[in-house]
Amino acid sequence: MIDILNRVRNKELQAKIVTAEEAAAFIKPGMNVGTSGFTPSGYPKAVPLALAARMEKEHFQINLWTGASTGDEEDGALARANGIKFRMPYQTNKDMRNAINSGKIDYCDLHLSESAQLARYGYMGGKIDVAIVEACAITEEGNIIPTTSMGNTASYVQTADVVIVEVNTSQPLELEGMHDVYVPLDPPNRLPIPVVKPNDRIGTPYIPCTPDKIKFIVPCDIPDRVRPLGEIDENSRKMSQNFIHLLHDEVKAGRMPKNLLPLQSGVGAVANAVISGFVESDLKDLSVYTEVIQDGMFDLIDAGKLNFASGTSLSPSPEGLKRFYDNIKEYRKHIVLRPQEVANSPEVARRIGVIAMNTAIECDIYGNVNSTHIMGTKMMNGIGGSGDFARNAYLTVFFTVSTAKGGAISSIVPMCSHIDHTEHDVDIIVTEQGLADLRGLSPRQRAKVIIENCAHPDYKPMLMDYYERALAATKSAHTPHILEEALSWHERFQATGTMKK
Amino acid sequence: MIDILNRVRNKELQAKIVTAEEAAAFIKPGMNVGTSGFTPSGYPKAVPLALAARMEKEHFQINLWTGASTGDEEDGALARANGIKFRMPYQTNKDMRNAINSGKIDYCDLHLSESAQLARYGYMGGKIDVAIVEACAITEEGNIIPTTSMGNTASYVQTADVVIVEVNTSQPLELEGMHDVYVPLDPPNRLPIPVVKPNDRIGTPYIPCTPDKIKFIVPCDIPDRVRPLGEIDENSRKMSQNFIHLLHDEVKAGRMPKNLLPLQSGVGAVANAVISGFVESDLKDLSVYTEVIQDGMFDLIDAGKLNFASGTSLSPSPEGLKRFYDNIKEYRKHIVLRPQEVANSPEVARRIGVIAMNTAIECDIYGNVNSTHIMGTKMMNGIGGSGDFARNAYLTVFFTVSTAKGGAISSIVPMCSHIDHTEHDVDIIVTEQGLADLRGLSPRQRAKVIIENCAHPDYKPMLMDYYERALAATKSAHTPHILEEALSWHERFQATGTMKK
Repeated sequence: MIDILNRVRNKELQAKIVTAEEAAAFIKPGMNVGTSGFTPSGYPKAVPLALAARMEKEHFQINLWTGASTGDEEDGALARANGIKFRMPYQTNKDMRNAINSGKIDYCDLHLSESAQLARYGYMGGKIDVAIVEACAITEEGNIIPTTSMGNTASYVQTADVVIVEVNTSQPLELEGMHDVYVPLDPPNRLPIPVVKPNDRIGTPYIPCTPDKIKFIVPCDIPDRVRPLGEIDENSRKMSQNFIHLLHDEVKAGRMPKNLLPLQSGVGAVANAVISGFVESDLKDLSVYTEVIQDGMFDLIDAGKLNFASGTSLSPSPEGLKRFYDNIKEYRKHIVLRPQEVANSPEVARRIGVIAMNTAIECDIYGNVNSTHIMGTKMMNGIGGSGDFARNAYLTVFFTVSTAKGGAISSIVPMCSHIDHTEHDVDIIVTEQGLADLRGLSPRQRAKVIIENCAHPDYKPMLMDYYERALAATKSAHTPHILEEALSWHERFQATGTMKK
Repeated sequence: MIDILNRVRNKELQAKIVTAEEAAAFIKPGMNVGTSGFTPSGYPKAVPLALAARMEKEHFQINLWTGASTGDEEDGALARANGIKFRMPYQTNKDMRNAINSGKIDYCDLHLSESAQLARYGYMGGKIDVAIVEACAITEEGNIIPTTSMGNTASYVQTADVVIVEVNTSQPLELEGMHDVYVPLDPPNRLPIPVVKPNDRIGTPYIPCTPDKIKFIVPCDIPDRVRPLGEIDENSRKMSQNFIHLLHDEVKAGRMPKNLLPLQSGVGAVANAVISGFVESDLKDLSVYTEVIQDGMFDLIDAGKLNFASGTSLSPSPEGLKRFYDNIKEYRKHIVLRPQEVANSPEVARRIGVIAMNTAIECDIYGNVNSTHIMGTKMMNGIGGSGDFARNAYLTVFFTVSTAKGGAISSIVPMCSHIDHTEHDVDIIVTEQGLADLRGLSPRQRAKVIIENCAHPDYKPMLMDYYERALAATKSAHTPHILEEALSWHERFQATGTMKK
């Protein structure tokens, strides 16, 4: 209790400290609820758990808007309570995914940079009724100090009628000062976002708020339920090496500075492995402008190779989180957390020229990428920030292991079963087999390079056979296809359990 | 001759005046040639015609980089001479299209805002060898006054080793002062593009150049070969009405200011009809931030409803061009021409919040859009600027008449045969049948609204039947599809000449 009082620095606000159940009782059926959280970091835990318990009894639903995915205490508990009618903009939770795919939850899969502004524009079905945000502390003035993620929290607090703050005593107070809060005005009044380097600070270290807007304060000590990262496997290591080799060539050719340009890296094991690969390279003075700060970036900081990392979320493994907390005073010199509207800003990504490194579920022979749908129909997670960066990067790369399901699926297919990134947005495809550099190529040229360099040997002859027959069948075709066969690999997998003939 | 001497204001440069043939003789096989031109406006004519004549005899090829499409004197003549190996970033010429689809020309179809920077980054196969640019005049200092388009000309002049200027005496000198030339620095040195309103001027009224960089000056008096616009037909009128009705609702709901936000409009008859529809509405104090300024915008200026139009090209009909020339002193108060890197800038489009209105070849029931490929294989024109605006707009709209080929093709299909704009980027679909507002909807919700509101009655039951069977067949699918049927409508059209069963 002393800890919570130290963290609620406005004495009058201390009177608003209630239990999670009392706060959750305020939520009405059909409300639009906006929460903090981006990956299982910095999301509210106690209030969603209490709300889910209430929903189990009272059977009602809300619309849930967040930064991105959240932890199981929020997305999992509420999905299991059948408490979500509408969900945006991203998720990764097993129970939520099942509810989305079975049609129980209406899921609106959005570019992460756009989610806050679309909410403010009134496109998501009205305004936010309640914002529930995790905080390190609340200042004298009522301003909110966020924890391990920024996400859309500042925008949700700004536009919500009512704010519920979960003060999480498991989050170290040293997080204070690591945030840079800037919410753009909406058109026609918006101005340039003045970030020109990854370490530029353009806002406040807190989310502006006033004591009267804060309705309830809930103490919580549940830690972020961060996810373990597997060992870096051989395939990831090869992909990282293939790509770093290309970067050396780019520097040699004068197309990139010696210390590269700011790195953006998707979330997960492959992305982390790619970043870790930089530790072993002779590249230095690197910078990062990305969404999520993972273990590999701590490795780079420790190795003295990474000058600065800008993100919207700290989402390392459990060991990585401990490592960060243990050495937070050092790491915080190198890290800033921004709202995702700035972290993922197309404007900034293009201006500073990020190197965008994201993973694909599948790529087709013409360079289109599927990031979201298994076999064209089943939602995996969502597009996340990949579109924000891929469209606007200096160099856009997609990584995918050439096969999945023990070789039964080729990640290089004749035609993607769903498309999230079009041929216009993809510069480089990297698999463990090799790398296809698609810059300046026509579709016919791209097909040959992708099949030759990226496909698994088991599928290479099948892909080349498809391409050559498509070319022969269509006399006049910029992008040769045999439409009745284009999706046959996916059909075959569904019918027989393998894409192989 | 007096006219040309008046237009070449640097006396020493007058000694560089040569014939088109002499200038064309400088072009070597395999050169990267960057030209002015965006639509059949402001492109060089005499030198490309002379170059094509040389190619007919000498049989060699160049790589051609432009702003967008150009007129027949450039794209048509060079394609017919089999003189192009590589072409970027856009085209609309019949002979060039045939050469692209037959594989004779390697065509790299790019987002128009990105083409100049990708060229500068060295991604298009080296640097520019020669820039050929149409000009109104050359100043004392050697600076170049462009004509009816800005396109990528400034960037190409900046990076080329050698510049050939075609001074076109058919272009009125009153064009001088209408341009605003700004070429961003490349990362890591790029700064915010400081446009915050459509009428902001941020650069120079000329393309910076020096006398020594200009190798040849060629007089030309061939006018822009602009294209006639058909009468506005009933379908276009209905689509325009459907959309303007929505805009009124947006204003009423407080989601948009009374004078809307800057309009962006694609090129062609439908886009022009939509803009013309605003003349009959009671909307006023409008502004335009777009690529191409067409006849409808002159109508809006004349009606006192359009305060300002920013574009990269003046591309009206022949009558519209005459109308513009006849009243240029009035129109020029309301118009600025910018490099396409600024006119189509994602940064600016998102900041000022454009209303992006573009046309689709086909849309699928989940809101994906095909803008480029007929039946998934044959290139029509290219993505152009649609991706620059659609991804970054305040409101993104695609227009398509619900059927094509006299009803044999449904423009609403189960699955697009090619995707240029994904479900994540499309807010509204408009046909002559009605309007689908997709904001905040899940794929299953989108399918119902698109089929119900936008499909032609001949195809509506077939589409609903597909959707319902897909829903039943896939128990767990965010985006229900029957993969073996998803492209069957296109297959049927190819086999039988109609998508109808």
